Amino acid sequence: MLIVPEREIANLMTRSAAFDAVESVFAAMASKNAYNFPVIREAIGHEDALYGFKGGFDKQGMTLGLKAGGYWPNNLEKHGVINHQSTIFLFDPDTGMVKAMVGGNLLTALRTAAASSVSIKHLARKDAKVMGMVGAGHQATFQLRAALEQRPFEKVIGWNYHPEMLPNIEKVANEAGVPFEAVELDGMVEADVVISITSTFEPTVMAKHISPGTHIACMGTDTKGKQEVEAALLGKATVFTDEVAQSITIGEAQHAIYNHMIRPENIVQIGEVINGTHKGRTSDDEITLFDGTGVGLQDLAVAASVVELAVKNGVAIEVDF
Amino acid sequence: MLIVPEREIANLMTRSAAFDAVESVFAAMASKNAYNFPVIREAIGHEDALYGFKGGFDKQGMTLGLKAGGYWPNNLEKHGVINHQSTIFLFDPDTGMVKAMVGGNLLTALRTAAASSVSIKHLARKDAKVMGMVGAGHQATFQLRAALEQRPFEKVIGWNYHPEMLPNIEKVANEAGVPFEAVELDGMVEADVVISITSTFEPTVMAKHISPGTHIACMGTDTKGKQEVEAALLGKATVFTDEVAQSITIGEAQHAIYNHMIRPENIVQIGEVINGTHKGRTSDDEITLFDGTGVGLQDLAVAASVVELAVKNGVAIEVDF
Repeated sequence: MLIVPEREIANLMTRSAAFDAVESVFAAMASKNAYNFPVIREAIGHEDALYGFKGGFDKQGMTLGLKAGGYWPNNLEKHGVINHQSTIFLFDPDTGMVKAMVGGNLLTALRTAAASSVSIKHLARKDAKVMGMVGAGHQATFQLRAALEQRPFEKVIGWNYHPEMLPNIEKVANEAGVPFEAVELDGMVEADVVISITSTFEPTVMAKHISPGTHIACMGTDTKGKQEVEAALLGKATVFTDEVAQSITIGEAQHAIYNHMIRPENIVQIGEVINGTHKGRTSDDEITLFDGTGVGLQDLAVAASVVELAVKNGVAIEVDF
Repeated sequence: MLIVPEREIANLMTRSAAFDAVESVFAAMASKNAYNFPVIREAIGHEDALYGFKGGFDKQGMTLGLKAGGYWPNNLEKHGVINHQSTIFLFDPDTGMVKAMVGGNLLTALRTAAASSVSIKHLARKDAKVMGMVGAGHQATFQLRAALEQRPFEKVIGWNYHPEMLPNIEKVANEAGVPFEAVELDGMVEADVVISITSTFEPTVMAKHISPGTHIACMGTDTKGKQEVEAALLGKATVFTDEVAQSITIGEAQHAIYNHMIRPENIVQIGEVINGTHKGRTSDDEITLFDGTGVGLQDLAVAASVVELAVKNGVAIEVDF
């Protein structure tokens, strides 16, 4: 079996490889060639940690396995390691034998950024000029970096609950040669594409903050109770997601469903747009909203891709298991 | 992190270490210091395979993780490897970082045998003389070997649907210096302890086959629909199990519950007997029945034990992950 340690991922994985892996597994999901298993997520009653498993099987890419790990809120302070910890395990679908073990921390950030990027590629207006960021944490930098590759943006505008964190994303914009401007939430009306990547239980982005024709990717809601955008915005938008089952239970759509503002059958799997079985955006006035909940198959897809790169680069550790 | 490959397990793990690990985690479960996560078990639609995860957290033993793998029915014929394939992953409960990866095939057999052994130690009559085996496959040999260490048995009697397989268990009995006799199912009335370890969807062992005072461990039923013993036998017995939730859904008790012959609140966690909070057997005429469904915490317990032994013996492979 092969091992790719966390420290190797940054040298191996590219944004474009992550994008391709995620786009192709979203497509496989929509064509019923790949599916996610039920998610296990447990508050283990120790260190306030959340721990669990996200697994799946992609029959098209022949990828089987899981991501295991979770959130240890005291890690940084107590142990000097990051709070999100995860490891991806790949199995051989032909035999059930373990095939690879891959560090999952950076990959999680890359696959999440790839998901919003895939949504921008397929759903944002071609002439999008202004990129809006709601959130400026660690994950936001990955999101913005990937998003800027999807359209020739001329400006990035950003808002964060803690404005002192905005330089995080300003730096990314500037590195890509795009000017940055801090705005109030009201200023988001200028954006053609918005990514919200915050961790909040009260909506931040209201319907009035999003102009007609905008594409918004909501990437922060992955748990029952969390909410980034006003439910009314989903009522006004065409709603897309990675997986409908997650979208309506732990994703952004949970609130709009609860308030009868949308119905599950009106939520479109992004893979259908990729596959061409759904037409995606149909007018320049339409608001498209992508509810990115994060599925296990994304993790498996990027892990499989990184294992291939590690072998090619001679840095995969081989263990006779 | 540490790796203990499958090939090392046989040299490292002893029946007594498996027994101690399983007995102690059963005790931790009953005292609410350890719990199993919901089980994921998926027919993946490829190679007729069943694949899934059994995880848990033992706060007492500080063991966190999962067993991943399943059943690939074509493995032996197509690939020359065994059909049951599993791997155990241990995580550090303090940080969420992966700690060890351990081959899970032999360990699964050892931990399952340890479970019935623990039940015999705590529930069989002290003067038990005749050991009865229903089933004579690969797993049965592990079961019998472990059981013979729990009482000074004077005879082993055995039945199997395919009688030509009985030499498998006769060999184990003889190695332990105990005579073996093949019997019809009616002959099981002679047994003081019975282990049934078959894979069947129709009951084999009827209430009339089991004499008063017998302890029977039902180890083969781990899926909805499977059944080894007549439901009426559970009605006549005091029923113990590793975990009540599994016993009533995927264990032997599912049928007796469905037929209203027992109630969930009357099923006793074996850990309560180990802890002394339940008195266990109360008379020489009582039939005690252990419904061994197999829980993730058993796998984690034996894996943690084998990692310790591997380190002590200098055979754990260390990988800088």
